[in-house]
Amino acid sequence: MTYFQPFLEALPTNWFGDDALLRQLLQHYAAAAGAAEGPALSSWGETVAGRLRDAAEQSARPGNAPYLRHFDAYSRRVDDVVLPASTLEAFAQVQGVQRLGALHGDPFVFYSKVYLFNQNGEAGVACSTACTDGMVRLLEAAGDHPEHRLAIERVRASSAERIWHGAQFVTEIQAGSDIPAIVLEARSSAGAYRLHGQKWFCSNINADYFVVAGRPRGAPEGARGVAVFLLPAYLDGRRNGYTIDRLKDKLGTRELPTAEVTFDGALAYPVGPLDRGLANILDPVLTTSRFACVIVAAASLRQAERIVAAYVRFREAFGNKLIDYELVRETLDDLRRARACALGAMFGLIGLWRDSVVSDDMRLHFRLLLSLCKPVLTRRSTAMLHEAIMQLGGNGIEERFSPLPRLYRDAVIMETWEGPHNVLLTQALRDLIRFEVEPAGFVERIAGGPERDLSDELARILGAPEEPGALTRFARLAGKLARAFGERVLAVSGCSDR
Amino acid sequence: MTYFQPFLEALPTNWFGDDALLRQLLQHYAAAAGAAEGPALSSWGETVAGRLRDAAEQSARPGNAPYLRHFDAYSRRVDDVVLPASTLEAFAQVQGVQRLGALHGDPFVFYSKVYLFNQNGEAGVACSTACTDGMVRLLEAAGDHPEHRLAIERVRASSAERIWHGAQFVTEIQAGSDIPAIVLEARSSAGAYRLHGQKWFCSNINADYFVVAGRPRGAPEGARGVAVFLLPAYLDGRRNGYTIDRLKDKLGTRELPTAEVTFDGALAYPVGPLDRGLANILDPVLTTSRFACVIVAAASLRQAERIVAAYVRFREAFGNKLIDYELVRETLDDLRRARACALGAMFGLIGLWRDSVVSDDMRLHFRLLLSLCKPVLTRRSTAMLHEAIMQLGGNGIEERFSPLPRLYRDAVIMETWEGPHNVLLTQALRDLIRFEVEPAGFVERIAGGPERDLSDELARILGAPEEPGALTRFARLAGKLARAFGERVLAVSGCSDR
Amino acid sequence: MTYFQPFLEALPTNWFGDDALLRQLLQHYAAAAGAAEGPALSSWGETVAGRLRDAAEQSARPGNAPYLRHFDAYSRRVDDVVLPASTLEAFAQVQGVQRLGALHGDPFVFYSKVYLFNQNGEAGVACSTACTDGMVRLLEAAGDHPEHRLAIERVRASSAERIWHGAQFVTEIQAGSDIPAIVLEARSSAGAYRLHGQKWFCSNINADYFVVAGRPRGAPEGARGVAVFLLPAYLDGRRNGYTIDRLKDKLGTRELPTAEVTFDGALAYPVGPLDRGLANILDPVLTTSRFACVIVAAASLRQAERIVAAYVRFREAFGNKLIDYELVRETLDDLRRARACALGAMFGLIGLWRDSVVSDDMRLHFRLLLSLCKPVLTRRSTAMLHEAIMQLGGNGIEERFSPLPRLYRDAVIMETWEGPHNVLLTQALRDLIRFEVEPAGFVERIAGGPERDLSDELARILGAPEEPGALTRFARLAGKLARAFGERVLAVSGCSDR
Amino acid sequence: MTYFQPFLEALPTNWFGDDALLRQLLQHYAAAAGAAEGPALSSWGETVAGRLRDAAEQSARPGNAPYLRHFDAYSRRVDDVVLPASTLEAFAQVQGVQRLGALHGDPFVFYSKVYLFNQNGEAGVACSTACTDGMVRLLEAAGDHPEHRLAIERVRASSAERIWHGAQFVTEIQAGSDIPAIVLEARSSAGAYRLHGQKWFCSNINADYFVVAGRPRGAPEGARGVAVFLLPAYLDGRRNGYTIDRLKDKLGTRELPTAEVTFDGALAYPVGPLDRGLANILDPVLTTSRFACVIVAAASLRQAERIVAAYVRFREAFGNKLIDYELVRETLDDLRRARACALGAMFGLIGLWRDSVVSDDMRLHFRLLLSLCKPVLTRRSTAMLHEAIMQLGGNGIEERFSPLPRLYRDAVIMETWEGPHNVLLTQALRDLIRFEVEPAGFVERIAGGPERDLSDELARILGAPEEPGALTRFARLAGKLARAFGERVLAVSGCSDR
Repeated sequence: MTYFQPFLEALPTNWFGDDALLRQLLQHYAAAAGAAEGPALSSWGETVAGRLRDAAEQSARPGNAPYLRHFDAYSRRVDDVVLPASTLEAFAQVQGVQRLGALHGDPFVFYSKVYLFNQNGEAGVACSTACTDGMVRLLEAAGDHPEHRLAIERVRASSAERIWHGAQFVTEIQAGSDIPAIVLEARSSAGAYRLHGQKWFCSNINADYFVVAGRPRGAPEGARGVAVFLLPAYLDGRRNGYTIDRLKDKLGTRELPTAEVTFDGALAYPVGPLDRGLANILDPVLTTSRFACVIVAAASLRQAERIVAAYVRFREAFGNKLIDYELVRETLDDLRRARACALGAMFGLIGLWRDSVVSDDMRLHFRLLLSLCKPVLTRRSTAMLHEAIMQLGGNGIEERFSPLPRLYRDAVIMETWEGPHNVLLTQALRDLIRFEVEPAGFVERIAGGPERDLSDELARILGAPEEPGALTRFARLAGKLARAFGERVLAVSGCSDR
Repeated sequence: MTYFQPFLEALPTNWFGDDALLRQLLQHYAAAAGAAEGPALSSWGETVAGRLRDAAEQSARPGNAPYLRHFDAYSRRVDDVVLPASTLEAFAQVQGVQRLGALHGDPFVFYSKVYLFNQNGEAGVACSTACTDGMVRLLEAAGDHPEHRLAIERVRASSAERIWHGAQFVTEIQAGSDIPAIVLEARSSAGAYRLHGQKWFCSNINADYFVVAGRPRGAPEGARGVAVFLLPAYLDGRRNGYTIDRLKDKLGTRELPTAEVTFDGALAYPVGPLDRGLANILDPVLTTSRFACVIVAAASLRQAERIVAAYVRFREAFGNKLIDYELVRETLDDLRRARACALGAMFGLIGLWRDSVVSDDMRLHFRLLLSLCKPVLTRRSTAMLHEAIMQLGGNGIEERFSPLPRLYRDAVIMETWEGPHNVLLTQALRDLIRFEVEPAGFVERIAGGPERDLSDELARILGAPEEPGALTRFARLAGKLARAFGERVLAVSGCSDR
Repeated sequence: MTYFQPFLEALPTNWFGDDALLRQLLQHYAAAAGAAEGPALSSWGETVAGRLRDAAEQSARPGNAPYLRHFDAYSRRVDDVVLPASTLEAFAQVQGVQRLGALHGDPFVFYSKVYLFNQNGEAGVACSTACTDGMVRLLEAAGDHPEHRLAIERVRASSAERIWHGAQFVTEIQAGSDIPAIVLEARSSAGAYRLHGQKWFCSNINADYFVVAGRPRGAPEGARGVAVFLLPAYLDGRRNGYTIDRLKDKLGTRELPTAEVTFDGALAYPVGPLDRGLANILDPVLTTSRFACVIVAAASLRQAERIVAAYVRFREAFGNKLIDYELVRETLDDLRRARACALGAMFGLIGLWRDSVVSDDMRLHFRLLLSLCKPVLTRRSTAMLHEAIMQLGGNGIEERFSPLPRLYRDAVIMETWEGPHNVLLTQALRDLIRFEVEPAGFVERIAGGPERDLSDELARILGAPEEPGALTRFARLAGKLARAFGERVLAVSGCSDR
Repeated sequence: MTYFQPFLEALPTNWFGDDALLRQLLQHYAAAAGAAEGPALSSWGETVAGRLRDAAEQSARPGNAPYLRHFDAYSRRVDDVVLPASTLEAFAQVQGVQRLGALHGDPFVFYSKVYLFNQNGEAGVACSTACTDGMVRLLEAAGDHPEHRLAIERVRASSAERIWHGAQFVTEIQAGSDIPAIVLEARSSAGAYRLHGQKWFCSNINADYFVVAGRPRGAPEGARGVAVFLLPAYLDGRRNGYTIDRLKDKLGTRELPTAEVTFDGALAYPVGPLDRGLANILDPVLTTSRFACVIVAAASLRQAERIVAAYVRFREAFGNKLIDYELVRETLDDLRRARACALGAMFGLIGLWRDSVVSDDMRLHFRLLLSLCKPVLTRRSTAMLHEAIMQLGGNGIEERFSPLPRLYRDAVIMETWEGPHNVLLTQALRDLIRFEVEPAGFVERIAGGPERDLSDELARILGAPEEPGALTRFARLAGKLARAFGERVLAVSGCSDR
């Protein structure tokens, strides 16, 4: 019997079962589907808190990091990226049994399942589901080649025995969020293209399909010259015309292999007309990725709240339970509010996304909100995980004691994924100006009522966006808007965590 | 030639040479010693930026983590903790060649050298210097046994061939910062003591001497019953009556072996009279540790500023250098201010520490300021390293690209070392009340002039410390006081980083 | 396409399908069962050559070695020995799906299946099957306690989801094959016993049951005082009164965790009457282990022959295929003869074993032959694997190129298991004398006809066993007898590998 | 105090001091130099038995294996092969302090020092000394380019701070000992050459210079078209036009990085006239390598004898010390004879080598003897190490208990290095015929007197070399000749190990 027994026993073994707020939101937003899927969700809640938690912990052990093997013993260049068995098991469950690689069924239920397994952090599989979901959305929207359709079919037919999944490679060494600076060249070749160049941040490198941004030879400079390609990872049992140079050694999401890749003649199929402009094409991919970051933020906040709640009720210091100290209670309340707000925002965004096909206006609104929520919530997630760690004192920084250090490291990665905060906020600000969004209406739509402080501040910023400090103030405002959005969703649905 | 060549070339190769602020502060606070030691400091600045940076990077590689070997091949229980050669080299330089294990010479020069090597993070050796320094201070203040004197002599005679160093074990599984809850038992035995029990956070476990807090059998409950012991790590070539159960797997300072230890008859020598009270005895040790955290904070802020400054001047996005973006410039300025303020606070604290022998009042003032600065600056260090990482985008989270991710992970450990923020701030608040410190005078002494906003707020808090939110407000005030203190030091000495 | 493609393609993918000699022997010795099990054997031949070969190669990678974890993160002593997923998969197949942990069905068919998977070397599972088989034989012969019966039931009910297996610990630090020197003490306690002491070579330490040789307190000295105990590895979810001090770092069978163990109060159940003498009790266990060594020898010779045959037909040097060189052909013939002879001996021994219940005479004959065959065949296996490696030149010593280096390392372990050659041969010689075995009859029974050279030499040795050099000559004779035995089996059954 | 204490204490701490035979041979063969170097040899005997034994054991730990890093974090292809600090220390001692990378001073004394450190096995450095020695001999014999002279100078100026060393790459994937089948192409380029192609066994890949066999474009087929090149490993701080594809995972000499390398434009300088024929040029290199194998064989036999002697005098079984058993004594005697004979052969070969410049006849005699001794002694070394392991029972196969398992694994590598046994013996046989060597005289020269059995057998073989079995018989004869040679050397010098 360990001293920590009461703490360990207080940790719930079903993460659906212990989540009243999630169940209330599902009841409000997806009553029928939620009811029908109730047993499945409960069973999944047990799996993620049991087998998948174990798998995530095993994959996170130092000796289990993915590694790259360039050659086999017979002088064959193979570029194998070896994953531990625990990661393979997670893949089989998440994308095989549950098929969470591509949206199907009710989106609220679907993303609730994603949210549940994301409470284990990246675990080698979270990036894959987001990228695959985005790829399928892209190909369903703009795919026109038999290879495109084959990819969709395969992903949707994934099973525990064989999953099919995707990845997306945009960043280059000289071009991070600056997509117009991309130089990877696509050369036309017999009805398809051959890619030549380097990609600098290729996550989920063991995927079966890659979505790659590149520049057809002779295309104009800047964003207009960038097109999007799909390529199968393997041709005839060999890597399709590229080498994996190195795996990155990242602060977080260490279970996920992120590679530096050189393409030299990889066969690829363009998605959509080459001249239709990058933004439109890539949009489903980037949107899905950003939304995935919001889910991860909500999920890791949930995990942090759960662990801290159990710990501070168990642990004593100076003669009292920690929970009896005012600052501790405040922190726990902050955690609870932050996760409730993030889950509310997640549900709100799912609804807006679903409805964004209705009109350009609704599409713009969704896009703006996502651009605000992604940086705000991922940043808040890092900050709150930091607070959570502090509540556990020395035990907080022990990687085997709780998943908090791992979730914290993962959270920082989420912040940098799909563009730094500055870039996304700048883009949102630009869109607000370009599309002449009316401040008061925008704020009311978000907050569910007039919030003069917020709309006045927004009006001031939009009125003088070049003024020194404007972006800083917009960043602060974004935080308030995201919070207002999440809270409004909770309020409208009558949900509460208490 | 890598794309990053200009960035790499912009990184200075002498961390003393590139640090105008440090040189100005030394000029002001230690003109004679600083001038005499100039060449040594410059040479050290090159060593820390060269050999020791290489060693730190090597020690940080996953395969080089310390590991524990319980038995050798001949059935001998050995409990060897194996360190990589790179860590041993760092030890030889830092505690052998430079003898930074115990204060000698001018304290401003001495701690400047510590500050310089701390810019490499823990690197397996930072904890050791702090603990050894504290142990020697403890033994010089309260030691009375030949073993105590031998320990001091050995540490001071350390050379590159053989260093002697110390560690301190206070935390128990049920007692973190709550020292009165300690239960490890010390049984009197032939003029010495035998220790029985467990310690839960034993950093620098390869030390030659351990300072251990324990409770003599029959001593009263609570803090009064806790005494302090010195024990040699080895007796007759074997571990001295304890087993090393496990090495912790920490978020940061991974190069430093931190163990869980069970004592079962370890021979130990009490330091000072057993009934003199723990606080007085342990004071030199805890003070030195907390001050060490301040140095680490200042040092890692300096490293972050250096790297960010080089990167944002090199990197382009959307057609501009990053430095040309307002938010980037602001962040760089924040970093610069934060590190200047931290370095100022470090110098100010050295002066107060040196002068604290003069009177009880000065001793109290130093103690209060240290209790404020430790939590504030370590917390700020984490936050600013986070910002620094963000400036490098995807490259920011790559552990091999720059030391930022490692320093960031180390920074979180500094926050939890020697008590969580809440505990230290609570203690400072209690001291202010107990010793009836006058708010206006206290603030003026810190800030170098009347700061009505600060002293009024302090007065309000002291007037109603039990009021809800008082501690939260005190935490906020502590941040302002620490900043005011650092800036005053800089101002008084006419120093500036520009 | 690698240069080695023709070699790789020449390697068969079904090790039952490519083994004409095995099929002929089965046809002769177990026609009905062999026919009935034909499809199962063929399917197993594919599994061992496919999935299990892959698993064995994965388990053999340096990073996948078993490791020992003494404590978990919550201060619980756990002594977990962590195995890679590939070893767990092999367990599931071999002892779960095939249930090769305890003899069932026709023994020729059963051990043919063992022989097939042993062609992958130890692979983390070979030792376990041998030990478990021996344990079940022991308990079925002498078990009388409900715990004994439960162990048998559990092993026989093993499935892919949960296997149950056993291990046997005899060797002590001062007592290897010298069993009378054992000192581990068993103290009577409430109808069972508590074990105190150390065991020095505890292979398959992750087993569910341990068979342990120990000395009841107060028992006489020497072999007569040694008894045999069964203990469950876990009680109430914790290690049953013992600690795992260390895992050995062995030359071969590295996939198999072999531990040094200290018992301190482990609850154990004696097997058979305490005073019945060690030899009778332990006999089933030691017999099964020694026979397992014979199977491994035959299996690894088969693998070596297969690989060399493919390689020398593929590889050219100085203008010719290697097979065209006389010395190469000779070596291949030697390999072929050695493996045929070993397989013959294996089948012959199975028959003798089965029949050994009929009479004391037949029991003695089996025992004598096993004592001769074990040292001779394991030694020959090492020597022939060495020759096989030489045929592949530089590629022969590459651990990833072929399993030969691994099988070679494993083979040396088989030589040392269950007693060095000298001890077994000395014991066989002693038995021949003690039981007054008649030389000519003994040789004829082995060789299937009078072999005057052999029987005369045996008579000379038995006539003057104390003469200098007698044991050396007996060792040489043993080699000839073992060969004669194997060849006779092949001849009688009209089998041939050509 | 471990049970093994008496054994550990019986192991000598100076391997020169405990080697009476070595001292006697030095006295006979190099009286003056040996006396002058006596203290140095004694000190070296302590270093190899102390620091270098420790370093060898550390380098042999699984986690310390050399590894290959293709890219750094800045997208620079670096192909770094990382060695542990222990190997670097061994390099500093062996090639820095002792400068054993190139023959200097008395050859008997020089190679005695090599023999002493080789008692630690490969240890990451043995291959390097042999290759460097051979390279310097090659360049001194045939070098004519300033780069050749620079390489010699640098090697000879090696110091503990910076050693310079060489490697030799001959084997290709399709061409092992079959040098005429080499295809790596050398293209003339501005006074030098550019190499293109692949080498399959590139040991000591961290060397500063590579000696590479290749085929100038347009050169004739077969051996005549093969030339020898020297290339610096680095040009301008980067790998000189080649990539390191993979490190081999070898059965033995695991501390030595052996690579597969692809050359694509490496700048190289031919050694000697291109048309002078490969054999003459490569001769110094191959001779040195083969002789190095003889030293390693003698050294590891010495180590095995030392350990077994200590163990069997310490260990008891069945009431007696092992040394009291006849078979054990025999094995120890075999070990002693084998090592004495090998050391004798080593000294004899040094003398012949030194004298081989005198006449073609003496050169041929040396060459023939080396071709006989290399396969015979390396093979014997493996066999005797196997016996040695058997004497230690279970402890024999423990890699941490003694170096025997490691030396055993290394020994197998020595057998395959510089050509399989068959190839060398075939070549010796061919030379005997081609140069019409007279059997009786040849045998007498070797054995120091007429040995009719041997010379008759040799005459028979030479008379009908194509007869079936001739080579097998020659192999057996080679064993006897090598033994006769070694024993004659011992006899002539009046040396004895007793």
